[in-house]
Amino acid sequence: MPSLTELSAIVGGTVVGDGSIDITGISPLDDAKQGDLTFITNPKYLSKVADTKASAIIANTELPDTSFPTLVVKNPYLAFAKILTEFSGKKPAPRGVMPGATVSESAQIAEGVTISPGCYVGERVVIGLGTFLHPNVVIYDDVVLGEDCLIHAGVVVREGCILGDRVIVQPLVAIGGDGFGFAPDGTSYYKIPQVGNVVIGDDVEIGSCSCIDRAALTSTVIKRGTKIDNLVQVAHNVEIGEDTVVAGQVGFAGSAKIGNHCTFGGQTAIAGHLSIGDNVMIGGKSGVSANVESDQILSGYPLMPHKEWLKSIMTLHKLPTMRKDLHRLKKMVEKLEKALHQED
Amino acid sequence: MPSLTELSAIVGGTVVGDGSIDITGISPLDDAKQGDLTFITNPKYLSKVADTKASAIIANTELPDTSFPTLVVKNPYLAFAKILTEFSGKKPAPRGVMPGATVSESAQIAEGVTISPGCYVGERVVIGLGTFLHPNVVIYDDVVLGEDCLIHAGVVVREGCILGDRVIVQPLVAIGGDGFGFAPDGTSYYKIPQVGNVVIGDDVEIGSCSCIDRAALTSTVIKRGTKIDNLVQVAHNVEIGEDTVVAGQVGFAGSAKIGNHCTFGGQTAIAGHLSIGDNVMIGGKSGVSANVESDQILSGYPLMPHKEWLKSIMTLHKLPTMRKDLHRLKKMVEKLEKALHQED
Amino acid sequence: MPSLTELSAIVGGTVVGDGSIDITGISPLDDAKQGDLTFITNPKYLSKVADTKASAIIANTELPDTSFPTLVVKNPYLAFAKILTEFSGKKPAPRGVMPGATVSESAQIAEGVTISPGCYVGERVVIGLGTFLHPNVVIYDDVVLGEDCLIHAGVVVREGCILGDRVIVQPLVAIGGDGFGFAPDGTSYYKIPQVGNVVIGDDVEIGSCSCIDRAALTSTVIKRGTKIDNLVQVAHNVEIGEDTVVAGQVGFAGSAKIGNHCTFGGQTAIAGHLSIGDNVMIGGKSGVSANVESDQILSGYPLMPHKEWLKSIMTLHKLPTMRKDLHRLKKMVEKLEKALHQED
Repeated sequence: MPSLTELSAIVGGTVVGDGSIDITGISPLDDAKQGDLTFITNPKYLSKVADTKASAIIANTELPDTSFPTLVVKNPYLAFAKILTEFSGKKPAPRGVMPGATVSESAQIAEGVTISPGCYVGERVVIGLGTFLHPNVVIYDDVVLGEDCLIHAGVVVREGCILGDRVIVQPLVAIGGDGFGFAPDGTSYYKIPQVGNVVIGDDVEIGSCSCIDRAALTSTVIKRGTKIDNLVQVAHNVEIGEDTVVAGQVGFAGSAKIGNHCTFGGQTAIAGHLSIGDNVMIGGKSGVSANVESDQILSGYPLMPHKEWLKSIMTLHKLPTMRKDLHRLKKMVEKLEKALHQED
Repeated sequence: MPSLTELSAIVGGTVVGDGSIDITGISPLDDAKQGDLTFITNPKYLSKVADTKASAIIANTELPDTSFPTLVVKNPYLAFAKILTEFSGKKPAPRGVMPGATVSESAQIAEGVTISPGCYVGERVVIGLGTFLHPNVVIYDDVVLGEDCLIHAGVVVREGCILGDRVIVQPLVAIGGDGFGFAPDGTSYYKIPQVGNVVIGDDVEIGSCSCIDRAALTSTVIKRGTKIDNLVQVAHNVEIGEDTVVAGQVGFAGSAKIGNHCTFGGQTAIAGHLSIGDNVMIGGKSGVSANVESDQILSGYPLMPHKEWLKSIMTLHKLPTMRKDLHRLKKMVEKLEKALHQED
Repeated sequence: MPSLTELSAIVGGTVVGDGSIDITGISPLDDAKQGDLTFITNPKYLSKVADTKASAIIANTELPDTSFPTLVVKNPYLAFAKILTEFSGKKPAPRGVMPGATVSESAQIAEGVTISPGCYVGERVVIGLGTFLHPNVVIYDDVVLGEDCLIHAGVVVREGCILGDRVIVQPLVAIGGDGFGFAPDGTSYYKIPQVGNVVIGDDVEIGSCSCIDRAALTSTVIKRGTKIDNLVQVAHNVEIGEDTVVAGQVGFAGSAKIGNHCTFGGQTAIAGHLSIGDNVMIGGKSGVSANVESDQILSGYPLMPHKEWLKSIMTLHKLPTMRKDLHRLKKMVEKLEKALHQED
């Protein structure tokens, strides 16, 4: 069991109070028990600190009670995350190709790789150092997986797709499914072969049951550090920049180009063939149907500045009353006009 | 083949007409053929009874034609469901651990369990009496599955998650995927380990391709009797009460707390860190962005009483005309003011 | 390497310029390199042709520069798709039942079928000539798969479902999961057994992680030629006609009936128990809550003619200003009335 002072070595910062105390777990303020380290990210919860059963706390300032063991850091949430990483244990030891896995002879499997039972690894696949495949993962031919990737159970990566290093893929994600492309042929549709691939950068994470379609001819691209939540649709030829965050059930239509460090709220839809700049925040359930310049906070459908949208939707329920008022006003004005006319 | 009278023993109620008639199947009014039992849940379809080819009917009242064999019950839909359960056959006989399944030695497998080919069962997993795993189900370490659960093909349950008794999980559901939690670290994001789990109560059902994420530190909870449809997103730390019904493609953001006996229409989004009381009905495609008290019927985004919302959206297409009217009225009033001023 | 003239034999049309040129690949205008055949589907990109590095082009008219090798066809996009099909290579040779697959003895497997490692094929399943199952596909009992189907990894087809010929199913699709049907029983819900099936016509394609639920008693039906994108929800008893196109994340609620040759934009919701005619186009993020006649272009929630809807939503952000104007106008009119009254 590490002491508070030992944990401070991981994240920097200074210890106020007794740093020799042993830390046995990490918990939120409300659920903490004796021995736990907790954290506070928002000063408005300061009053709750008196009630916590935790033995120590991470905060961005000294607490009023300076005898309560406190790790003071600039970014408590990040410090909590790093200490929790330390606590949540090491990666399991590599187990190699396990019985019940099917690995093609032409596949190149690096050292320290785990390929669990029920996995399938196709021809000419390359898997980098330390990558871990949970059970029943299917890797089609000619895929490249980088180093230290973590691929959860049931994931499918289709032919020719490329993943960088430290990519985390949650269960049941489909990478490289055919893009949705059909050429009208009379009243029917002719399938356009989707012969491109998907290229995913380092440190990307993709949530459960999300779909990243392969490009028609080139590549669907998700760049370094981008985080995608569950049930997200990324259509063919989409490009998403670095460090962009995409909440659950968002859908990107074909060939949309997204910049770096954007944020998309849940259930938002992005139409095809448009561009979104860098540092754009888009609220949940929005519909993006035109290009978006960098450095904006937008919401709604159609998209508008977030504050303007808030005002608009808050007026929505007044609409029927407004309509009645307008009608009544029209009658009044007509009557006034008539009255004025009679006087002439 | 059971007789109508024999079937009445399952559901109670009284038989009017010839109860000795043999019932060979169950069908809706339109599709029924001779020998079938059909049902009527809404008196407005009474006129269709004359045309049905069915040999008997379930209704909540005697029919005008009392010679037509009728099972009169208080709740015809429930009686239909129970009789259909009788007809749709018994659970398949248990088959134990089948060839092609991988089961860890430390797993505790009760009697009457079926573990189909391609399944993986991790270390220290506990599986209760009579639970049935269809092919290619992956159960990570330390999972507990209760008794008489039915887990369909391709489902993934990640480490430490707990399912109660009689839980039904449709194909390709992801239970216990990592919650979507990242601490900003400069312009990048640092992954917050998700070390909690998912706890699912008795008699819960979860639809195909839905995702229930594990909590960051504690538990994501779905309580007894709740029914979740397909492609639903339940984020980390969400709590859903008992007997709540969630339609397809709904999304619950992190830490939302939902009461008992609520209903959510399809594609609705529930923002994070809010509370919804008991007996709340929320219409489809709604956006819930604030706490909701119990016993309400609401719709829209922003959420409002369902009837108010209906009026508002029905006025929406009048908006451009209203704007023109308003503009015209402004001109008229200005003119009137001017005219009146000139008279002075 | 085929020449341009040889390729023209596949699609018809006439070659302008040097048809003997060898074609080594197919690329979009921007990405093309020497040896590539490119295509132009919209005259507005004509100016870009001068800059392309491609060696030949498909167009629907002669280009200004008639020395540039051009394949002139009526429908360049369709010609591109057909030539790309030729280039993208032949189907892999059939491999039979591969080691690691589990196939029931009662299954009838035609010639030229591939059943990859990790697949499960249940009792009495029928699989037609040339159908290809990628790894870890699960086919429950009594399923019928037609000829030349392509079923990608991780797909689940539950008991009794029927697929036609040349059906393509992308990874991790759930076909035949239970419909979402429960009869209220006090404050709880009683599961209605879903004993129907799913019937899918010839030449249908279904995108990754989509769900097609089985009917309660009869069949959920998707007819010939219909194309469904990723993460789409098709509830029980839905019927979708021929050659209909459904974009990503659309949801059809139970018993909706959809005609032929319709198009649905992404994230649209269709309520249950309603009918949509033929040749209906519905924009993205719409909500369909009433029957829709044939031959219309509609959008919004509530649904309205697409152009009317565009005008309405473009006025939405004027709503707060309109409300203020209306209030001010009311005051002005009241004042005018008073003034006029005083004069009397």
